[in-house]
Amino acid sequence: MKKLEEQLQLLPAAEVTLRASRISEIMRQAGVDGLLLCDNANIYYLTGRVFCGFVYVDADGGISCFVRRPSTLHGAGIHFISRPEEIAAHIAAPSAPAFELDTMPYSRVERMRSIFSASSAPANASAIMRWARAVKTPLEIRKMEESGVRQTEVYVGIPHLYQEGMTDMELQIEIERSLRLHGCLGQFRVTGPDLELHMGNVLTGDNADTPSPYDFAMGGAGIDPSLPVGADGTLIVPGKPVMVDVNGNFTGYMTDMTRCYVVGEPSEDASRALRLSCDICARIASLAVPGAAARDLYNEALSMATNAGMADCFMGHRYHAGFVGHGLGISVNEAPVLAPRSRDILVAGNAIAVEPKFVIPGIGAVGIENTYIVEENGPARQITNAPEDFIHLA
Amino acid sequence: MKKLEEQLQLLPAAEVTLRASRISEIMRQAGVDGLLLCDNANIYYLTGRVFCGFVYVDADGGISCFVRRPSTLHGAGIHFISRPEEIAAHIAAPSAPAFELDTMPYSRVERMRSIFSASSAPANASAIMRWARAVKTPLEIRKMEESGVRQTEVYVGIPHLYQEGMTDMELQIEIERSLRLHGCLGQFRVTGPDLELHMGNVLTGDNADTPSPYDFAMGGAGIDPSLPVGADGTLIVPGKPVMVDVNGNFTGYMTDMTRCYVVGEPSEDASRALRLSCDICARIASLAVPGAAARDLYNEALSMATNAGMADCFMGHRYHAGFVGHGLGISVNEAPVLAPRSRDILVAGNAIAVEPKFVIPGIGAVGIENTYIVEENGPARQITNAPEDFIHLA
Repeated sequence: MKKLEEQLQLLPAAEVTLRASRISEIMRQAGVDGLLLCDNANIYYLTGRVFCGFVYVDADGGISCFVRRPSTLHGAGIHFISRPEEIAAHIAAPSAPAFELDTMPYSRVERMRSIFSASSAPANASAIMRWARAVKTPLEIRKMEESGVRQTEVYVGIPHLYQEGMTDMELQIEIERSLRLHGCLGQFRVTGPDLELHMGNVLTGDNADTPSPYDFAMGGAGIDPSLPVGADGTLIVPGKPVMVDVNGNFTGYMTDMTRCYVVGEPSEDASRALRLSCDICARIASLAVPGAAARDLYNEALSMATNAGMADCFMGHRYHAGFVGHGLGISVNEAPVLAPRSRDILVAGNAIAVEPKFVIPGIGAVGIENTYIVEENGPARQITNAPEDFIHLA
Repeated sequence: MKKLEEQLQLLPAAEVTLRASRISEIMRQAGVDGLLLCDNANIYYLTGRVFCGFVYVDADGGISCFVRRPSTLHGAGIHFISRPEEIAAHIAAPSAPAFELDTMPYSRVERMRSIFSASSAPANASAIMRWARAVKTPLEIRKMEESGVRQTEVYVGIPHLYQEGMTDMELQIEIERSLRLHGCLGQFRVTGPDLELHMGNVLTGDNADTPSPYDFAMGGAGIDPSLPVGADGTLIVPGKPVMVDVNGNFTGYMTDMTRCYVVGEPSEDASRALRLSCDICARIASLAVPGAAARDLYNEALSMATNAGMADCFMGHRYHAGFVGHGLGISVNEAPVLAPRSRDILVAGNAIAVEPKFVIPGIGAVGIENTYIVEENGPARQITNAPEDFIHLA
């Protein structure tokens, strides 16, 4: 009896066909006749598992797997290789395949190009995969829904984790444990080499207004300059919001949700900002229909913040993040992007996180974030469902 | 009063000079007259903090910082940029700088090359930084020692975390919490895009013999095929070793330590394998002196395993890892590498993790791992000091 975990292909055949045919359609439009992929997220997308090696997608959407490790995998159409040079003999395409130029290190691309004797500049598989992965299949949406349910369970339980006298970091550690006990994989998968974050952010007080190296509305100094983001050991005090934005990866697919907690009662300004954030989320969800321009959604959010006199605090205060929402799925930074200069147009099956947040001097970070699925008909469907008002820690 | 966390340069000036002059010496040998670095680990190495941007190292070891985010940083010689194209005007070198070709995505290198109108192939800054970082300064060694002390505290306390009926994952979650409460940053920094791991591995029983996508002696199926490594929910039972190899990043610098725990008494075979692992570590430490060839250390470890009749289980069973030790510091995979074909020669200041491990069918994973500093005189100095024998969970 062979073990499931040693099966190369963990997706149903129809699911592989669905994903690969979408990719091949985008390849055709881009004039590309082969993709050779090695990014873990893309390998997972096409097989349902991660391995060390490559997945080749041909012009007809056929896929071949070239596996370096583990050598114990079994399945149809598997080629075990010890060196990438062995791949060329199996690929019949007339030109060199496209590579993931946005994530693959330069020296690896050069090595792969030499295998295929490529003379012209390589085509970019990253953009093709980005567009294919932006439209989730029903199976992917089910995985995201499951993450949303479990993440919601954790968020609802956070008041039970709080004890008087805790710092932001102490509360975060208990939340991390609760996430893991609920099945969170811990790993926060990001596309690209820059963004480093451990399981998410818990921010209270002025720490939220310390800008980080990343394009985040909320920053935080962190506890060490080698990872300067997030909780910094600030004491949680009555009346000051505690913003929780932590890891929703329970299934290989991530949901993104933010909620605000408070000991005692929040100030009237904080409550007003939170209501505005909820209103913006609801408005964006109603506008997030197929055909909508992502930048129009950003502009609507900014305009609502401006009308409320909150533009100065919108998406940060000392630093303003350049977006109000982002696609997500296997990675937390996928297409489409809800940003002022985005050219993305929404389609049914997009999964987007919308996070209209405010950083108010003297109060801290206030706002919510929800993950939505763009539907064929009607407003986007929310899959992160913890209560949106302030949740009392005590 | 400006806050420390908004200071660009967090290293003493003499420390920056020491590190940069070492880099410039290697640059001279390589015939390179400028490095433009953007990898977080290298930015941290040269400034003591992470930011979004670039650090330029000139031929004389002078450094300039080009910061995109956070724009609130302050310090001497800081250039704020919004686009990398703005860097070229500040760099006087005759040719294009070297880039981190082993970690920087292809499309980013191409963009940077176009800024400098580079026609020839770019030089590789990755190799230069790898060699510079392989030799730790006294300040770096102090940071590693501090990580070693704190990691040891956590390892000694693990029996207090165990409760009867726990699975490997349940114990791992309590260990993760303890690490975090002791100041662990959570982040497990790895060079390159391939290796994904959440805070380390806790393995018991036959799960250790499930090969992973990575070049690890110990694998583990994990709890989801999107992250197929580590604990899989196996129940911890009396007499079966539990191998703990978890995150030692408390200071921005990592130590790596593995210990074996057991409920009740281990089998005689397990005890014998553990003693052999300890003996190999002690032997390698005695041989790890300046001038020693890294591959000779590997061969000595293999030869001791072979003489004990344990070659089949050495560094794995169904999969055999291709090394017995590795450099570490800011990242967990640095130079030198203790592997059969390694050309690395040890020098004083190298930090190496030595991990002679065995996977024994029917028993599981057995072995220890220690982090050592290569000393000018005498054997390598061990900085991970939890007891090496089996530690009783109950």
